[in-house]
Amino acid sequence: MTKTTRLADMLRDSPILRLAGAHSALSAKLVESTGFEAIWASGLEISAQAAVPDANILTMTQALSAASQIAGAVDIPVLADCDSGFGSVNNVIDMIRQYENNGIAGICIEDKQYPKLNSFIEGNQDLAPLDDFVTKIYAATQVRRDPSFTVVARIEALIAGAGMEEALLRADAYTKAGADALLIHSKKSTPDEVYEFRRRYAGPLPLIVVPTTYNSVTATELEAAGFGAVIYANHAVRGSIAAMEDVLAQIYKDGTTFHVEDQIAPLKKVFHLQGMHAMLEQQSRFEKLAAERLAK
Amino acid sequence: MTKTTRLADMLRDSPILRLAGAHSALSAKLVESTGFEAIWASGLEISAQAAVPDANILTMTQALSAASQIAGAVDIPVLADCDSGFGSVNNVIDMIRQYENNGIAGICIEDKQYPKLNSFIEGNQDLAPLDDFVTKIYAATQVRRDPSFTVVARIEALIAGAGMEEALLRADAYTKAGADALLIHSKKSTPDEVYEFRRRYAGPLPLIVVPTTYNSVTATELEAAGFGAVIYANHAVRGSIAAMEDVLAQIYKDGTTFHVEDQIAPLKKVFHLQGMHAMLEQQSRFEKLAAERLAK
Amino acid sequence: MTKTTRLADMLRDSPILRLAGAHSALSAKLVESTGFEAIWASGLEISAQAAVPDANILTMTQALSAASQIAGAVDIPVLADCDSGFGSVNNVIDMIRQYENNGIAGICIEDKQYPKLNSFIEGNQDLAPLDDFVTKIYAATQVRRDPSFTVVARIEALIAGAGMEEALLRADAYTKAGADALLIHSKKSTPDEVYEFRRRYAGPLPLIVVPTTYNSVTATELEAAGFGAVIYANHAVRGSIAAMEDVLAQIYKDGTTFHVEDQIAPLKKVFHLQGMHAMLEQQSRFEKLAAERLAK
Amino acid sequence: MTKTTRLADMLRDSPILRLAGAHSALSAKLVESTGFEAIWASGLEISAQAAVPDANILTMTQALSAASQIAGAVDIPVLADCDSGFGSVNNVIDMIRQYENNGIAGICIEDKQYPKLNSFIEGNQDLAPLDDFVTKIYAATQVRRDPSFTVVARIEALIAGAGMEEALLRADAYTKAGADALLIHSKKSTPDEVYEFRRRYAGPLPLIVVPTTYNSVTATELEAAGFGAVIYANHAVRGSIAAMEDVLAQIYKDGTTFHVEDQIAPLKKVFHLQGMHAMLEQQSRFEKLAAERLAK
Repeated sequence: MTKTTRLADMLRDSPILRLAGAHSALSAKLVESTGFEAIWASGLEISAQAAVPDANILTMTQALSAASQIAGAVDIPVLADCDSGFGSVNNVIDMIRQYENNGIAGICIEDKQYPKLNSFIEGNQDLAPLDDFVTKIYAATQVRRDPSFTVVARIEALIAGAGMEEALLRADAYTKAGADALLIHSKKSTPDEVYEFRRRYAGPLPLIVVPTTYNSVTATELEAAGFGAVIYANHAVRGSIAAMEDVLAQIYKDGTTFHVEDQIAPLKKVFHLQGMHAMLEQQSRFEKLAAERLAK
Repeated sequence: MTKTTRLADMLRDSPILRLAGAHSALSAKLVESTGFEAIWASGLEISAQAAVPDANILTMTQALSAASQIAGAVDIPVLADCDSGFGSVNNVIDMIRQYENNGIAGICIEDKQYPKLNSFIEGNQDLAPLDDFVTKIYAATQVRRDPSFTVVARIEALIAGAGMEEALLRADAYTKAGADALLIHSKKSTPDEVYEFRRRYAGPLPLIVVPTTYNSVTATELEAAGFGAVIYANHAVRGSIAAMEDVLAQIYKDGTTFHVEDQIAPLKKVFHLQGMHAMLEQQSRFEKLAAERLAK
Repeated sequence: MTKTTRLADMLRDSPILRLAGAHSALSAKLVESTGFEAIWASGLEISAQAAVPDANILTMTQALSAASQIAGAVDIPVLADCDSGFGSVNNVIDMIRQYENNGIAGICIEDKQYPKLNSFIEGNQDLAPLDDFVTKIYAATQVRRDPSFTVVARIEALIAGAGMEEALLRADAYTKAGADALLIHSKKSTPDEVYEFRRRYAGPLPLIVVPTTYNSVTATELEAAGFGAVIYANHAVRGSIAAMEDVLAQIYKDGTTFHVEDQIAPLKKVFHLQGMHAMLEQQSRFEKLAAERLAK
Repeated sequence: MTKTTRLADMLRDSPILRLAGAHSALSAKLVESTGFEAIWASGLEISAQAAVPDANILTMTQALSAASQIAGAVDIPVLADCDSGFGSVNNVIDMIRQYENNGIAGICIEDKQYPKLNSFIEGNQDLAPLDDFVTKIYAATQVRRDPSFTVVARIEALIAGAGMEEALLRADAYTKAGADALLIHSKKSTPDEVYEFRRRYAGPLPLIVVPTTYNSVTATELEAAGFGAVIYANHAVRGSIAAMEDVLAQIYKDGTTFHVEDQIAPLKKVFHLQGMHAMLEQQSRFEKLAAERLAK
């Protein structure tokens, strides 16, 4: 089964699909080995890694390159955060072609303007005109070559302060436009807002949530409430920041790495994640087998 | 003072220069804010981040791209790990031009063959022929446009099992060839080997060590022994691996991020590292000032 | 004298500065060897080379990569066509930093929306709001580190059908905002329109024209009329297309390259443009000199 | 039928397969529209385009990027010139994965050392040890996921002055190792040498020739002699150089483009090759259809 089909199936079927954010091949491998069923190639994580604002300062080329490295490193499917689609419908069309070509299983675009601003920041969160975004969603579903390639429409009406009615109106429009799933984003400290949306959305599409701010709700509760997927969107990179600060501060203070050795992965773990020994073993095997061929 | 001059000065002068490895703009900013005086754009960290073996699977283009992002994110100078120079002397010449153009303050090349293998791995650690490597060092110093751009010659004789006499012979040759500093690498569990090298090397160049395996020695002790710089080459990425594993496992088990919130950087810390608010403030300021210009 | 200073000086001083478009390091070297004083890193040529529409389908990363390769190949300065600035003022700010870092001598941005459409195509040619574009120009001049880095404001009012008064109003505003030069674009078949603009613009900035459609006017006439620079913006790539079509058709028909040999550059010319022998001679020289150092 | 299958079939079956070299998406589209059945992503053309020596100064990343853009622009299959494989067998393995992922239909590697030097240049043309290269060919055929992905072994024994017997010995070895085709390279001014090789090679693999220097032989004659494919490897870029020089010199002399207009492709041809109108028509169509969906 292809990655695209697996992602599409897991989104539609129970139990609730759990995705975790990644920003690199390395973090993606850790998401995979932990047991998550899919990866969110997170715009916030990837821009944080590059130390530039999460505001389309990174170009589509750079976002794609990160998502492509992530997808190349793991066997689980990758859903790529594509912000507002990097421009107009023509940019979305080109984007779909390139993300498909690079082994990504699906993309998510949000109904804000280009350049977008991170949803948790005070600033311009203006929504895109409805017809513009509907055209993007429709076009995305028409130009994909693989019908199982997932197109998620992310609704920012609650973030933008446009209200629940606007969110539901847009949910309806994106459903008609052909989206495969809806991501309803909220920055409230409780899940009440997304719960209300869940109750009132009558369409057939699976609903995805990102409980960054309403972080006490559990996947089990979200599943019971009828959600199709949950994304832990930025915790890997945030964990890495805290740890790197601690480790570096300790080394700087001590003038030696001696006291951090038990807080850091051993070298052999790093080599394992890189496939170092696997490469050398494969090389030896191929050298031996090639020599046998030659000897025949 | 330029970054190249600062790196060159700090290498030559006491106290001992402390560098820490980085693999991304983000980790580089953390190295800088901790207080380290310079950054090691680490081949091991960068390849680990990409989840490919530290064996020149990443190309020079990719190594440069990582080093360039690191250099662009910080004010402290960056010394780039350039493995064995990515090929022949002609590749080294092209490499120098490109690393200089990208704001790197210096490079380090090691006297192994291309493709190189990480020094802590059993496998082909064969040294490059002496005259080949001497030509690379000489060429590097001739083609740099900025005479303060640092060229470090890394000696792998002790790693390769070629012995102390070979290490000293090469140290002499690279000194004559024009290197600005020597990195003497060792995988022993004590610093005895590099101490012996330090005592017996009579040349004028500053000596750099990488105490990954002899990790109980302190910077103060290394300074007292006469070393010019110490590199903590791979601990940031190793700290990040351990932390990401922990955080992801906890989230996976709990089905919520609630219990990891105190182990991870808060969102506002992430936004600060990205310069999110700085960007918005600058934007407002420019909008206001531009409007004033127009009103005149 | 730096490339930035040379470009700035040539723009301000007589005689008229002549730029020709390029799309690759190779075409740039030919522009330089012909005698042109500067290169236009042309958005149309670069997108044509990539066989994608001239409509911001290529990202800033890709445009920069092409401009950077061009700048790295020649000694004359490069003025980079940066469309409408790849997004908002924040994208322009990031763009300035990156173009400066890559050895470009100046950039030109036009007062259209993102994504822009080639000016000779029927379609959305809507102008950007005046204050938005003024902020971009102002910000560009504030964030450049080298005060000689040229910022050209391109006026699309005549292309957009907004009329001469709008063009002059914008010329005034961009002058106040701090632009170093104005590019007044026109798609008329005669230069009358740009002549009128020249007569009526009373500001101090040099004016640049792109006589793609009014192609009978000469540089001498434009100089006499008071223009500061002329750009032959897309003729190299258009010449290459016609030639490649001819050569390929002839080979396909003949089943041999025999009859095209006199229409194509000889291999030794190709090797010369690549610096093949220069590389080998430098390698020999460095090998010899390095050996001499070692022998001392 | 996939591109990989089409290339494999055309190589095996008569009539002789004709490939022409390309260096960009644009030149690739011209190769395709002329009628050639496949494209050679030429190392010489691509390095010439970048104005760097054809000596592995461009990295695999850059060679792949060019080949990927070429493959993305055309419907005919692309055979990529991969020099000597960019390093060791481990680099070849990584290369196969990446070229397959980027829509290339096959690759060709030559039995020289890394970094390689263009075959028409006096200099180091030393052959790789037989077993090293056999391992590369064997490994390439083992790690491809698509069994129709073509692996061509290029024999440089005649270029290197190693003689016909060595060429035949290597042909045999590469056949045993699993190559899909052999490219026998020669820099003689007549095809006698490759004819002798053809007569004496008794294996089952199709043979490919590159008649750059023996340019009077025709495809029909090569087919009659039993060759499977012929590559016109570098004529597009050489045609473009001659034309760009002429056009630029004329413009520079005249101070106007008036007298070159009939030697250059009209703008509308450029726009057609870029798919400019196709994009706008598709946009209009999607806008209309999306609006219809919404109205339901």
